[in-house]
Amino acid sequence: QRRGIPEAIFAAGKSAEQVVALAETALETTDRALLTRVSESQFDALETHLGERDLDATIDRRGTSVRVTTPEHDQPTLDATVGIVTGGTVDEPVADEAAVVCLDAGATIDRVDDIGVAALSRTLDQLDRLREADVLIVAAGREGALPTVVAGLVDTPVIGVPVSSGYGHGGDGEAALDGMLQSCTVLSVVNIDAGFVAGGQATLIARAIDAARD
Amino acid sequence: QRRGIPEAIFAAGKSAEQVVALAETALETTDRALLTRVSESQFDALETHLGERDLDATIDRRGTSVRVTTPEHDQPTLDATVGIVTGGTVDEPVADEAAVVCLDAGATIDRVDDIGVAALSRTLDQLDRLREADVLIVAAGREGALPTVVAGLVDTPVIGVPVSSGYGHGGDGEAALDGMLQSCTVLSVVNIDAGFVAGGQATLIARAIDAARD
Amino acid sequence: QRRGIPEAIFAAGKSAEQVVALAETALETTDRALLTRVSESQFDALETHLGERDLDATIDRRGTSVRVTTPEHDQPTLDATVGIVTGGTVDEPVADEAAVVCLDAGATIDRVDDIGVAALSRTLDQLDRLREADVLIVAAGREGALPTVVAGLVDTPVIGVPVSSGYGHGGDGEAALDGMLQSCTVLSVVNIDAGFVAGGQATLIARAIDAARD
Amino acid sequence: QRRGIPEAIFAAGKSAEQVVALAETALETTDRALLTRVSESQFDALETHLGERDLDATIDRRGTSVRVTTPEHDQPTLDATVGIVTGGTVDEPVADEAAVVCLDAGATIDRVDDIGVAALSRTLDQLDRLREADVLIVAAGREGALPTVVAGLVDTPVIGVPVSSGYGHGGDGEAALDGMLQSCTVLSVVNIDAGFVAGGQATLIARAIDAARD
Amino acid sequence: QRRGIPEAIFAAGKSAEQVVALAETALETTDRALLTRVSESQFDALETHLGERDLDATIDRRGTSVRVTTPEHDQPTLDATVGIVTGGTVDEPVADEAAVVCLDAGATIDRVDDIGVAALSRTLDQLDRLREADVLIVAAGREGALPTVVAGLVDTPVIGVPVSSGYGHGGDGEAALDGMLQSCTVLSVVNIDAGFVAGGQATLIARAIDAARD
Amino acid sequence: QRRGIPEAIFAAGKSAEQVVALAETALETTDRALLTRVSESQFDALETHLGERDLDATIDRRGTSVRVTTPEHDQPTLDATVGIVTGGTVDEPVADEAAVVCLDAGATIDRVDDIGVAALSRTLDQLDRLREADVLIVAAGREGALPTVVAGLVDTPVIGVPVSSGYGHGGDGEAALDGMLQSCTVLSVVNIDAGFVAGGQATLIARAIDAARD
Amino acid sequence: QRRGIPEAIFAAGKSAEQVVALAETALETTDRALLTRVSESQFDALETHLGERDLDATIDRRGTSVRVTTPEHDQPTLDATVGIVTGGTVDEPVADEAAVVCLDAGATIDRVDDIGVAALSRTLDQLDRLREADVLIVAAGREGALPTVVAGLVDTPVIGVPVSSGYGHGGDGEAALDGMLQSCTVLSVVNIDAGFVAGGQATLIARAIDAARD
Amino acid sequence: QRRGIPEAIFAAGKSAEQVVALAETALETTDRALLTRVSESQFDALETHLGERDLDATIDRRGTSVRVTTPEHDQPTLDATVGIVTGGTVDEPVADEAAVVCLDAGATIDRVDDIGVAALSRTLDQLDRLREADVLIVAAGREGALPTVVAGLVDTPVIGVPVSSGYGHGGDGEAALDGMLQSCTVLSVVNIDAGFVAGGQATLIARAIDAARD
Ligand SMILES: Nc1ncnc2c1ncn2[C@@H]1O[C@H](COP(=O)(O)O)[C@@H](O)[C@H]1O
Ligand SMILES: Nc1ncnc2c1ncn2[C@@H]1O[C@H](COP(=O)(O)O)[C@@H](O)[C@H]1O
Ligand SMILES: Nc1ncnc2c1ncn2[C@@H]1O[C@H](COP(=O)(O)O)[C@@H](O)[C@H]1O
Ligand SMILES: Nc1ncnc2c1ncn2[C@@H]1O[C@H](COP(=O)(O)O)[C@@H](O)[C@H]1O
Ligand SMILES: [Mg+2]
Ligand SMILES: [Mg+2]
Ligand SMILES: [Mg+2]
Ligand SMILES: [Mg+2]
Ligand SMILES: [Mg+2]
Ligand SMILES: [Mg+2]
Ligand SMILES: [Mg+2]
Ligand SMILES: [Mg+2]
Repeated sequence: QRRGIPEAIFAAGKSAEQVVALAETALETTDRALLTRVSESQFDALETHLGERDLDATIDRRGTSVRVTTPEHDQPTLDATVGIVTGGTVDEPVADEAAVVCLDAGATIDRVDDIGVAALSRTLDQLDRLREADVLIVAAGREGALPTVVAGLVDTPVIGVPVSSGYGHGGDGEAALDGMLQSCTVLSVVNIDAGFVAGGQATLIARAIDAARD
Repeated sequence: QRRGIPEAIFAAGKSAEQVVALAETALETTDRALLTRVSESQFDALETHLGERDLDATIDRRGTSVRVTTPEHDQPTLDATVGIVTGGTVDEPVADEAAVVCLDAGATIDRVDDIGVAALSRTLDQLDRLREADVLIVAAGREGALPTVVAGLVDTPVIGVPVSSGYGHGGDGEAALDGMLQSCTVLSVVNIDAGFVAGGQATLIARAIDAARD
Repeated sequence: QRRGIPEAIFAAGKSAEQVVALAETALETTDRALLTRVSESQFDALETHLGERDLDATIDRRGTSVRVTTPEHDQPTLDATVGIVTGGTVDEPVADEAAVVCLDAGATIDRVDDIGVAALSRTLDQLDRLREADVLIVAAGREGALPTVVAGLVDTPVIGVPVSSGYGHGGDGEAALDGMLQSCTVLSVVNIDAGFVAGGQATLIARAIDAARD
Repeated sequence: QRRGIPEAIFAAGKSAEQVVALAETALETTDRALLTRVSESQFDALETHLGERDLDATIDRRGTSVRVTTPEHDQPTLDATVGIVTGGTVDEPVADEAAVVCLDAGATIDRVDDIGVAALSRTLDQLDRLREADVLIVAAGREGALPTVVAGLVDTPVIGVPVSSGYGHGGDGEAALDGMLQSCTVLSVVNIDAGFVAGGQATLIARAIDAARD
Repeated sequence: QRRGIPEAIFAAGKSAEQVVALAETALETTDRALLTRVSESQFDALETHLGERDLDATIDRRGTSVRVTTPEHDQPTLDATVGIVTGGTVDEPVADEAAVVCLDAGATIDRVDDIGVAALSRTLDQLDRLREADVLIVAAGREGALPTVVAGLVDTPVIGVPVSSGYGHGGDGEAALDGMLQSCTVLSVVNIDAGFVAGGQATLIARAIDAARD
Repeated sequence: QRRGIPEAIFAAGKSAEQVVALAETALETTDRALLTRVSESQFDALETHLGERDLDATIDRRGTSVRVTTPEHDQPTLDATVGIVTGGTVDEPVADEAAVVCLDAGATIDRVDDIGVAALSRTLDQLDRLREADVLIVAAGREGALPTVVAGLVDTPVIGVPVSSGYGHGGDGEAALDGMLQSCTVLSVVNIDAGFVAGGQATLIARAIDAARD
Repeated sequence: QRRGIPEAIFAAGKSAEQVVALAETALETTDRALLTRVSESQFDALETHLGERDLDATIDRRGTSVRVTTPEHDQPTLDATVGIVTGGTVDEPVADEAAVVCLDAGATIDRVDDIGVAALSRTLDQLDRLREADVLIVAAGREGALPTVVAGLVDTPVIGVPVSSGYGHGGDGEAALDGMLQSCTVLSVVNIDAGFVAGGQATLIARAIDAARD
Repeated sequence: QRRGIPEAIFAAGKSAEQVVALAETALETTDRALLTRVSESQFDALETHLGERDLDATIDRRGTSVRVTTPEHDQPTLDATVGIVTGGTVDEPVADEAAVVCLDAGATIDRVDDIGVAALSRTLDQLDRLREADVLIVAAGREGALPTVVAGLVDTPVIGVPVSSGYGHGGDGEAALDGMLQSCTVLSVVNIDAGFVAGGQATLIARAIDAARD
């Protein structure tokens, strides 16, 4: 566990066997395992393995991210809320990745989906909820304008996560990234699809607030 | 005059003498001259020259764009309104460039400045005016989110003009351009700072609407 | 239905089941469904489903775009013609995507294929037809010169659509995009392969003209 | 004052007269003015003006950033410390820009200069100070490795600011930016040279911590 | 003289003294000097020097290119014509650079200016002249479509020269370059503004044809 | 047949049926068919079809390019030699593509393989052959230095073809392309892997020389 | 054997048969074969072939690199040590590629894995070993900071190898490459994933040191 | 003095006063000063200062690099030769920068200028000298092929330095850099114009060889 951010297993590019073995080690040492970018077949192998191992483990699968805890796991709690916001369906797995990191650290998650700026009234309708969070993660693809619009309406620190949607020029999240870097409001940013990093940074902020609340 | 779009003199990179000579020719042949990207010293040379020439010319200078008409000029009129919208001060010369083209063609201009998305209420306050235009030109720099937000709120065709503001990654208007190309609403786009092209395209649309109104 | 532009289902990256379900919902709520980037297997699943559902639906499939209407559908009509032009075979699916959007809105389509600038006489031969449209969508790949050449010959607003053909440097539509942005005639542009956006923008212009004609 | 982040005057590209006028307005309305990217001649004009105006103003000039306060200014205070760290001399004006924003909001600043990774012992020597801050801004140019190294050694949220030093491939801060986005530790990032944004984001975090401390 | 292509002095970035000294040496050894990218002040220094040297030299200045010959110079002649074509005024110095190289080798030049594709009839009007050349150099900026259009209409080898005009995305000749590389007709290309290289390549082709004619 | 360059069928991205049908039409109208980028399965379908059609056709397959001629085909001949040179094995299919175009036009081909600059003596050993060609096509990947080195040693026009080999930064032929554009000798260039275009351009030059020889 | 660097077979993109044939030739001529980028199925074919050939060959497989030696092989030895360092697991195949080249030349290898800068104490713990090498190869992906940190701590020449890990902006090794080029310490660099080149360069240095030691 | 590489003052972007002060400090502490990227006016200020200071200092100015030593300076010597090679005049200041670093460390320099590959015989003529060096620095701009050609002909480690010459696509040294990274021979590379880094790396290699020679 580096810097209080849960160590996660980046499953992409690994064999199902490697993923299972790494999860096994994590469970043995920390009574929990966090995995990101898990494919269907990697998940199946993991589920089968956990079934065979008889650990009475709880599997929390969100998008391509997975969190496994055993009954022995000593779940921390933080007195702080991370708001996690998406513009559309395609942003959800990235938001899920951020969410499992924050959950693992014990933060409260307030998830607000599908409020992209193409239909601005949906954004405005959620303003009260957005203002209640201690820190906001806003994931958006295509032109990535949602974090800018949200940050202009709240006093909360906003972490923008560009999502690799969009085709053609500026596709694969590059337009969303540079748009967030150029934002005319105050934002900080993580790399394209880096839900894990956004979740980690929100966790550090939430933990600082939790400590201050004590 | 190609395609009914006023021929303009692109002054950047020309000497003051060349600019004056080109304006003189335009005035002689069409009783008006349209100039873009005019520097202080080019403007001074033009003004001096016009003073000496005793043409009783009217000079309409907006930002770096200049329109000169003589009393002989037969001003066309179009029964159509072009809304020209800017996010901030830095976008104004680009909007001016679009405006002189539309004015030259006889369209009505409705100019709405400084309603960038960082202060969304200012955008929303202008919605009624924006909805009344027949076609909208929306100029925005930095992340260029304003055309997306506007286009999501109106039924009018929107032409986005990325403006070369912003520093760092995606600066010089590139973030604004790719953001507009990736827009999750329906927009068409012109090149960075291409107020002239946006004005020309809006003119063609305005003229089609004017013709249909007859 | 946002801004009078038909909401479409972007099928790429979705499972056949998701696509069928989304189409089902669209049919239930609007008596029609519009789908873009539909693969062979997604289409087969849709066709099978519609056969089973006994809706007496009409399927209009063009390239990778599909429009389904039920007899209950109340087809709007617009008194305006959208000319849709391609340079070569590879541009046709992109033009089809634009076409289904315009058809859905009730515009008349005049489709002119295979008049790329390598054989300029074919371009020139179609000039009369091109001049009769109220608005033109011109799709072209490789160097993307066709919208420039067409726009230099007509008084109609032209929307250029760069197409992702071409290999090597500037391939994947980037050369066509930047060529259209740099055009020495007046054009507006949408992103690479964004037939949907071009169709939407042409629809907004056609609708404004239709309204003015009343 | 947007979102509790001090509104600043971006002096680059403005005339000395414009800068003075904007500062004058800020002083009249808020009893303070914050200016960034101020040139020598802009500063001289400002200083002369303030001398003539007899406001008894205090001028705090750091690098190219300037903060002016009048005796009437009601300075807020935050019970939170922002650590501001630089790798080398060239990063200092960017760090100064962040500092004036945090100072304006009333945060305590702990500035640690010249601890770039080429001489790692200097970095390690400052670890205790770095660990005491509530939030860290780390500015670094060239390859931008310092925020990664620092973030690996502390539990504090780190905001990386790439600085536009370096020549050749990846120069102008691009290598530093992409290195921070690719960081193997947890960081969030702002655009190249965006000290103002980093200061704003740190202020929002500091204010959240300050509020929690009450 | 490398490969039968006249050695030229690239004046950009050199002092007036260096340019004069290099020209002096070229005149002494070959009775002629070829210079490209010559500034006003470099030209003045050269002219002054030649006046003082009393060589009875002939100065042929075209755009920023200069060719100096003494009466002793033994001018070669080639029985071959190089057509040199430009789209607009801004392309002319690049075409001049190509022209001096071909002239130096003794080719006949047929220069056709200002036939850019925005006004296609001007292009078509020159078709007969274009078809009479043995090899064509076509210089064009902005979107660079002219070489494609010309090459589609003639049987002559065409060398495209992208010119660094245009602003915004794809500016500085990049759009013209990639458009020529992606051309749907058969072309070969040289670098942006590389009039010298185009002239050299046309010279080699002209010389091969001249040799074959003997 | 456009501009005397054989029309070819670009097979990539087409179904085997489409390729066969296009070849059939070409054979019917011109007694020959030229195909590029032909996959194994496309070739098998073509071969089977030709076997069934009983045309007594000759199939000349080189790399991924294929030329089919029937006994009725009236083969032109050109009194000119095109030298086609490669640096290594990976460049050969690109050189083959150029070769079939030149062969179709009746030029003599002199093919010189595997003389890349890493083993310079192999390049130098072939100098006499290289000097005998009327025009040279030089295909090279990785850093693409071979056309530069060859062009420095001969008086023949050289057409460089960058090949999409190489990995990492500048891979996919981009380093070879920009290296050829920056060449310190005189070269013209075609796009990456554009053997067809290089063959077409060499054919036009060879035909001009052939005509001059008559 | 070029320049004393072992000639290797680059297996990527070759058929198993081609790879086996090339290895066979190498073994016949040099009693050893070096292969890089070998897939599972290529390796299986090679192993099967070697089994059948009864050469009593030794197979040294490391990552995707393979070295085969027969008992006849006359192994050179160098009195010099190459330190080969990796930041994490993903860098290991690239380091393996470097290692087989150095081993083939007879250098001593000191391999130090998994000391990436996110956990700096692991880097510092290995300092003594790093300082004992005669030349260091340091492979690192993501932001590529490890060679910079190591080079700041030793007096040994360091060759940085960027590794194509990382997603999003600067992914595929580009951030690591530009970070190493911008390094604030003294480094030289090879292309992304170019373990072969790094091994070759280290071999040349090791051989020069070995020669000096004699 | 970091890692045995002479600490240098990077003068670009500093005032003449800052440069003089830094040089003064270096002289006081190490009896020598090394400066790179020194402008005319910075040099004049330095020279004046040294004249006034009466240090009896020796000034060794090469291109834009300057080395100052006092009689007290204890000059080290290395028993190793660094060959420093340039393709053309424009590469010389970069080679000079490398040279002063190596000289400062006491290496023998063998400088070979103007042997660019456009005139290959000049390269080949110097082969014996090139083969005698212990390590080679090869600086080249435009397409940067010289290090590749040299490295193919010697057994010495070659460090390529791309130089920021060249205009158009791939200009500013980018083509030279990617060409060296893609080299089909074995090279390591430093950033564009990074003569200082090349000199530092050569020094480290030379020192290792010198140590081995003892
Ligand atoms: N700001 C502008 N942006 C794009 N095109 C322009 C602009 N101003 C003028 N033009 C057009 O550029 C072309 C060349 O202008 P000129 O260089 O004045 O001959 C003419 O067709 C002008 O109408
Ligand atoms: N080909 C397309 N290009 C761009 N946008 C599209 C396309 N097809 C559908 N859309 C829009 O993309 C948005 C998301 O679509 P969906 O993923 O189906 O929810 C909707 O607003 C659609 O109208
Ligand atoms: N390898 C190639 N590279 C570039 N153009 C080609 C190539 N092969 C065929 N062509 C041309 O591409 C155009 C389109 O080919 P097709 O897609 O077969 O209709 C025709 O003009 C062909 O002559
Ligand atoms: N992984 C590698 N990276 C760069 N070059 C390589 C690699 N493996 C082999 N080579 C070299 O690439 C050249 C071509 O290899 P081949 O394609 O096998 O003939 C030979 O000079 C090899 O030594
Ligand atoms: Mg945006
Ligand atoms: Mg953007
Ligand atoms: Mg283009
Ligand atoms: Mg980097
Ligand atoms: Mg073009
Ligand atoms: Mg290159
Ligand atoms: Mg880095
Ligand atoms: Mg090269």
